[in-house]
This record gives sequence, C-alpha cells and structure tokens, in this order.
Amino acid sequence: MTLPQEMTAIEITEPGGPDVLQATTIPVPEPDTNEVLIKVAAAGVNRPDVIQRKGLYPPPPGASPIPGLEVAGTIVAKGPETSRYSIGDQVTALVTGGGYAQYCVANARAALPFPQRFDPVLAAALPETYFTVWHNLFFRGGLMSGETLLVHGGASGIGTTAIQIAKAFGVTVFTTAGSAEKCDFCEKLGADLAINYKEDDFVAAIKDKTGGKGVNFITDMVGGDYIQRNLDCIAEDGRIHQIAFLRGAKANVDFTRLMIKRITLTGSTLRPRSIAVKAQLARALEDQVWPLLSNGSVRPVIETVFPLEKAADAHRLMEESRHIGKILLTV
Amino acid sequence: MTLPQEMTAIEITEPGGPDVLQATTIPVPEPDTNEVLIKVAAAGVNRPDVIQRKGLYPPPPGASPIPGLEVAGTIVAKGPETSRYSIGDQVTALVTGGGYAQYCVANARAALPFPQRFDPVLAAALPETYFTVWHNLFFRGGLMSGETLLVHGGASGIGTTAIQIAKAFGVTVFTTAGSAEKCDFCEKLGADLAINYKEDDFVAAIKDKTGGKGVNFITDMVGGDYIQRNLDCIAEDGRIHQIAFLRGAKANVDFTRLMIKRITLTGSTLRPRSIAVKAQLARALEDQVWPLLSNGSVRPVIETVFPLEKAADAHRLMEESRHIGKILLTV
Repeated sequence: MTLPQEMTAIEITEPGGPDVLQATTIPVPEPDTNEVLIKVAAAGVNRPDVIQRKGLYPPPPGASPIPGLEVAGTIVAKGPETSRYSIGDQVTALVTGGGYAQYCVANARAALPFPQRFDPVLAAALPETYFTVWHNLFFRGGLMSGETLLVHGGASGIGTTAIQIAKAFGVTVFTTAGSAEKCDFCEKLGADLAINYKEDDFVAAIKDKTGGKGVNFITDMVGGDYIQRNLDCIAEDGRIHQIAFLRGAKANVDFTRLMIKRITLTGSTLRPRSIAVKAQLARALEDQVWPLLSNGSVRPVIETVFPLEKAADAHRLMEESRHIGKILLTV
Repeated sequence: MTLPQEMTAIEITEPGGPDVLQATTIPVPEPDTNEVLIKVAAAGVNRPDVIQRKGLYPPPPGASPIPGLEVAGTIVAKGPETSRYSIGDQVTALVTGGGYAQYCVANARAALPFPQRFDPVLAAALPETYFTVWHNLFFRGGLMSGETLLVHGGASGIGTTAIQIAKAFGVTVFTTAGSAEKCDFCEKLGADLAINYKEDDFVAAIKDKTGGKGVNFITDMVGGDYIQRNLDCIAEDGRIHQIAFLRGAKANVDFTRLMIKRITLTGSTLRPRSIAVKAQLARALEDQVWPLLSNGSVRPVIETVFPLEKAADAHRLMEESRHIGKILLTV
C-alpha cells in the first residue's frame, strides 16, 4: 500500500467561532516508534475541541494543532514498538490532537480493538468519553457497587456513558439534564432518576431521594454555582469530581460542610495524563467494559454524524447543547 | 477505694467569653460497659473548647456538656468490656467531652497507656493533637516518606505535633507561623523551613523551595484566603486537608488549578468520628508513634499549665494566639 504525502485536515485558522474551522492540506503524519498511523474513518467531536477552537485550551507540548481527540479506522503504518497491532487492523484510539483529518497518529497503548460488531462511527464514539468516565469514577474515584452517583449533564457524551457504566457496575445513578426529552432518554438508559434542572432544584430532589443523606459521588462538568450545590447534596465521605467548568471555575463557596462531612473535592482532565496512565485506562476498559459493549449491555449514544468538511456545523450543534450523546465526523 | 458522689467540674454557664467558665459541683459520671472512669490528673485545652464555649460548636449527641476533649490520669472504675485495663492503670484518653473535671469517663478503645517516663501533664498533651494529626496526614491523607508537607499554624499544638511526626516518617516539612520566635522554634523542632506569614508570602516561599512545583500535602487550620493560596502552591496530585477555619470557611475560589493539577481538597473533624475509627487511630499511634515518644525522638510541646479552676485564663491565653504548643489544666 502506498500512502499519500498529503491529506485533508480541518485546521483552526484563528481563535473564534465555528467558521474558523477550515479544510486545509497538510502532510500525512509519520508514526513514531510507539505509534500507529490510522486511516481515519470517523472522529469524535468533544467539548475540549470547542474550547481549543476559541483559543482557550492550547494543545499540550508535542500535540498536533489540528483538533480532534479520538479516531477510529484502519492501521496503515506503524512504528517498531507497536507489536500488538498489524497493518490492516481496525482500532479506536485516544489521541492528543489531530483527529479531524484523513490520517492520524496514535500511541499504540492508547488504542483498542473495536468491540464486536462495531462499525467505525460507533467505535470513534468511545475513547474520549469512556477513558474520561473510567478515569474519574473508578481509576481516581474508587466508585463501588452499592453506592449512589449524581451525574450532571446526563444527556452529554460523558453523561450517557457514565450512566450506563455505573449502572452496569451496580451503582444507583441520579442525573440532571436540561429538558423533559433528555430526562426521559437518561431514564431509558438506566438512570434511576433524571432531574430537569430547568424546572427542579437538584439539591432538594437528591436529598428527597436519599432520605436526606445525599449521594456518595458526584461527577460534574458544570461548576459555577453547582460547586456549592454539590457540597449541599453529597453524603458523608462523599467525593466530587470536576471534569469541566461550563459555568466557570470561580465560585464563592462555604467549605464548612466539606470539613464536617469529610467531603473530597477534586478534578482532572484526561488530555495531559501520561501515556502510562492512558495505557492503564485502556487495559481496564478492554478488560471490564469492552465485553459489555460487545454484548450490547452498554452502548454509545450517537446524536449526529457530519462529514469531516462540516466540522463547523458539528461545533455549532455542540454549542447549542440540545444534543443527546455523541457528535461525530466521518471521513 | 470509695469514690465520691460529686466532683468539681468547669461548666459553660452561658455562651460567651472566658469568664463564662465557672467551677460547679456535679455528680461523678458512671462508666458504661465499654468505658473506664479516670481520676483526672491533667486535661488538655483545645481550640474546639473555645468554639464550644462561644456557643458555636454544640457537643455531639450523648457527649458531656462539660468542655474538655482529652485527659490523663488513673483508672478508678470500669465497665465489664474494658478487659485491657485494670483499676490503678495510668492512661491518657481522647474523650467526647467532660475533660475539665476531677473525673471523666472514656471509651477504653480511645485510651492509651502512658509512653515511658511520661507524667500526667505530658500524657494529657497527646490525644487530641496526635489523633488529629494521624487521622489527617496518614489515616485519610496517605502521606508518604519522601513527600513534602506544608503545615499552617506550625507553633500550635497540632503544628508542633505534625512537624515532628512527619519528620520522623521521612517527610520534608515546611510550616508557617506568626513570629520570628515561633519560626525559630518550629525549625528547632525539625521543620525544614518556617515562614513568618506576617512578613513573607508563603506561596512564593513554597514555590521557591520546591522549584516551582509546590508541596504534595497541606494541612490547614486557617481557611479564608488561605484556601486559594493553598491551591496556588500545591503540586500536581496534591492533597489539602482542612482541620479548622480560623479565618472563616467562606472564600471566593478559582478551581481551575484544582482540576488541571488533580488536587484533592478535603477536611475532617475528629470529634464526631465513630469509636471504631478512634480505636484504629489509637492502635496505629500506639504501634507507630508511642515508641518515638518513649525514646524521646518525638515529644509534646507544653506552653503553660493552669490549675483547673483557672480554665478561663487558659482560654484567654489560647485566644491571644501567642502560645507555642499545648495549654493544659491540672487537677
């Protein structure tokens, strides 16, 4: 197989709105010793891509300036230290950037085979949300069967994933979402209760459902006033994990309850983590979650698929926040 | 031995200043099945006693309304489920209240024998600070040899204890204190650096000492503006433990760094913890710290000893915050 020298990719021409995403022609990247080169069939669109497009989230050192944190496709070239995979294998991979393109390099240890009967679109919907959810709930958070979880943004890619995985591991799941339709969807996915935050106070709803005790764990992408409200509805020894701050990272907070109830407030982002950590997450997911995807008991939720050239439309849809599940690009 | 029916104790006549502490005569308490009755020789004075005196920290359910969280003395009666101890044994104990008195009951599992060559005043200086420090740094915080620690309030009972124990376990210790004299004292106790917070910015000093990385662990009793400043000088994956909020529990905080650096912010109070947890702490202390007290490599720091009847003076001294180490009452 002869690889082309150049490819189409979507670049951020300057920080700004969705229209700064423009098709361009750049060299096909070359895989490093521990990397595979993937001919991209589908790529995921994620909230960090939007923040990067606005100029507020620069790529980490060494990462491609092209947006895109997850791809699925076929391996067309590989470095010498990638013995698990062969040319022609289909993989889905977490990447540090460069996903909005015809070809993308990925560290082989952050790549996974497709679950059984998955096509590239379904497979490309997995890495960013599944790595993030596993990293927060289990790897860092130690969430256990029998505990209670509150997931904010239940209809998002992260939310729909967290609801399903947590339920599969015996956790009682509460969630918030912004419309009756989204709440219905979350409950159909398995959530024990979905709270429409535009109509109901989630603190009161959680206290009511837990006999006043609060939940054991909260995963939050909202921040802002939610930081205090999370402290107000979490149980003794509860853990709150921030994965984003859509309403801002600054808040006026009373920490009395954090001390009295021994609450742990922490947070993380996936992208800057070492390849060693990402490899651990990949192995845990392949071992514990890929079988659930293969047998259909957990599934990615897809909102819309756009052709690569319509990346700007994909960003517009994400910023409207009306979507349920993942937004993807196909090449 | 015949026990008296009544005893002298110091009661809080009404919420207020030090003078609301008044001697009174009340019945000698009777030990429950798992309790020992201690003829108190010395009792510790702690910051929570001051807050309780002001009416801002009500005793937990079942606890004595008499202040005092730690006593040392001789066992004069005991319940049937206290087989470890005999009448006449000298013990020091963490109690849920009632320490400012001639007699005090203690759960036998929260009591410890005296370290070798300790008198009752030295022994009474141990429970509250040693249980609290162990609970935060090791039991909840997992502090490890080779890590770096910042202890605020280095000259306090908690501070002098944390500096010595952490050093004994191979931790590099930085501390803050409010005068040159206190800073000298902390460095003599083993602190690698003591920062006079009235003259120097501890955030800049910590960054300077750690090559910009920050410390792995902060134990903080200050709160207020320290909450943001702690976030500004803690390393990736660092842990911040609040044990009090002397400058208030409310703060306007930017949590960006908490997420980006995967910082854990938590806190705890010792008093409401179950006897099962307190018993675990007692066993760990007896096993790992009592030998260090017995051989003199770690020692309690005593500021002043007052007779029980002068409890009001002891509180005045504590509220002036000029003291170094523990303030105690003798009976």
